[in-house]
Amino acid sequence: MQLIEAVPNFSEGRNEDIVEEILDVFRGTDGCHLLDAHRDADHNRLVVTVVGEPDPVVKACFSAGRRAAELIDMDEHSGSHPRIGATDVVPLIPVRDVTMKECVQMAEELAERFAEELGIPVYLYEEAARRPGRRRLESIRRGEYETLKEEINRPEREPDYGPTELPRAGATVIGARQPLVAYNIYLRTEDADIAKDIARAVRGSSGGFTNVKAIGLEVDGDRVQVSMNLTNFRSTPIHRAFEFVRREAEQRGVLVESSEIVGLLPQEALISTARYYLRLDDFDPSDQILEYRLADKE
Amino acid sequence: MQLIEAVPNFSEGRNEDIVEEILDVFRGTDGCHLLDAHRDADHNRLVVTVVGEPDPVVKACFSAGRRAAELIDMDEHSGSHPRIGATDVVPLIPVRDVTMKECVQMAEELAERFAEELGIPVYLYEEAARRPGRRRLESIRRGEYETLKEEINRPEREPDYGPTELPRAGATVIGARQPLVAYNIYLRTEDADIAKDIARAVRGSSGGFTNVKAIGLEVDGDRVQVSMNLTNFRSTPIHRAFEFVRREAEQRGVLVESSEIVGLLPQEALISTARYYLRLDDFDPSDQILEYRLADKE
Repeated sequence: MQLIEAVPNFSEGRNEDIVEEILDVFRGTDGCHLLDAHRDADHNRLVVTVVGEPDPVVKACFSAGRRAAELIDMDEHSGSHPRIGATDVVPLIPVRDVTMKECVQMAEELAERFAEELGIPVYLYEEAARRPGRRRLESIRRGEYETLKEEINRPEREPDYGPTELPRAGATVIGARQPLVAYNIYLRTEDADIAKDIARAVRGSSGGFTNVKAIGLEVDGDRVQVSMNLTNFRSTPIHRAFEFVRREAEQRGVLVESSEIVGLLPQEALISTARYYLRLDDFDPSDQILEYRLADKE
Repeated sequence: MQLIEAVPNFSEGRNEDIVEEILDVFRGTDGCHLLDAHRDADHNRLVVTVVGEPDPVVKACFSAGRRAAELIDMDEHSGSHPRIGATDVVPLIPVRDVTMKECVQMAEELAERFAEELGIPVYLYEEAARRPGRRRLESIRRGEYETLKEEINRPEREPDYGPTELPRAGATVIGARQPLVAYNIYLRTEDADIAKDIARAVRGSSGGFTNVKAIGLEVDGDRVQVSMNLTNFRSTPIHRAFEFVRREAEQRGVLVESSEIVGLLPQEALISTARYYLRLDDFDPSDQILEYRLADKE
């Protein structure tokens, strides 16, 4: 069974009626399972997590995008989180039996519908990006809604789909990316500098692993943490980040106390960790894990 | 969603028509998923693996037992594998959201139906055993069908349910047990004595772990293996067996090459391995694993 996740972000975190109307679209779509909804009044933003087979998930994202365009006026919107549209960003994420290429194609089809049926300019990002400068969300969102309104007709800001004029629903960023695993490792020390040093060593931006973002910080007053985002656990798995941080800590005379996953992750991430440590060279999850076999029967 | 596994064994591995008739019962029961069927002509035996919610799985085991009693005459049966009945043994195994106690109760209900509706004597074994000497299958099956026929009216062989006379369908052993994980570790040495030594150290019968059975042997002519059955991976997990064998091997100057799972296992076994190695102290699989969350929605 094919499974994808989508994490659409909407620019409304204060008006509960609007939030509920958007969530109702997801709740009302058969086969699209609403796993989480996080509303933040300060950000004035709603972050939705849905999972299911590709068709119902993409369909629900489109319908929610239409509803958001009807309900949210970006000229009236303010909040502390960067944004350019009512439906601000829609990442599609392969979970099971779906390739990244297929997710990119779904993103393109969704982008086309946003543009043609809703008249919303769309930028493709991450794995779906068509211009090198558009892989990263930050660069697409530069200056936010207010600046984009002025600049959208400049060649460098021309959307990948839709009009070169910004409607009151703003623009939407759509794309495909790997699941993000938020992963923290606690160290047995009170010296936050050690965590900061290790964060620099492990993260891609300063010479570490390509798919790791990291900071070091003190938590709870008496221990420190290397806090990471693993942006592609298939290429840079959790166990590799863990073993690397452990070795770096030991070089500094510090032991790893424990680690934690923040939020959700696909089970594949933990299965591959078990395979690594047990050296299970010839293991076929779809054939040997009871629940996988069952899922394929259903 | 509650899930159990059942691995009923039938005394027919040669006559394909009979084998298919028995398998058809499982195939024809909605909600009972046939994962595997292993037929052995030499053993003259059929081993079936089914998974699903408790009701359909237990129902299919009963119907297949009735069909086997109609089709198999134990007076005519011969084979190299020990057996006492047409439906020889039916273990029920908790997989997800089911306690062992619930599985014991299901075993008792199934035993009652075998006795009352089919007139078959039933012995309860493993976790469902009512007499200490009946936990182990071997002791219940002592002397096999032919001897049991003579001895079934002796007090020590009196069945837990049903008549004290053996019908031509023989007797059936029904019970509940933990999933069995067949787990082998390969060592980088050609000296089979090292594997035999380590097998003795790891297995419960000679002082090792309670829920581990093990032998050491040579495989493929040039490497050796510690071959284990983990009879309760919840109490004696895979990673503990692995780390123990690894340390024992290193004490003897030998490295672990790889390991393998033979056949099926519940994913929980690998999730708990990942948690152990990553030191994930506060991890809640039902809340944090995407597929678990989805299963609870469906």
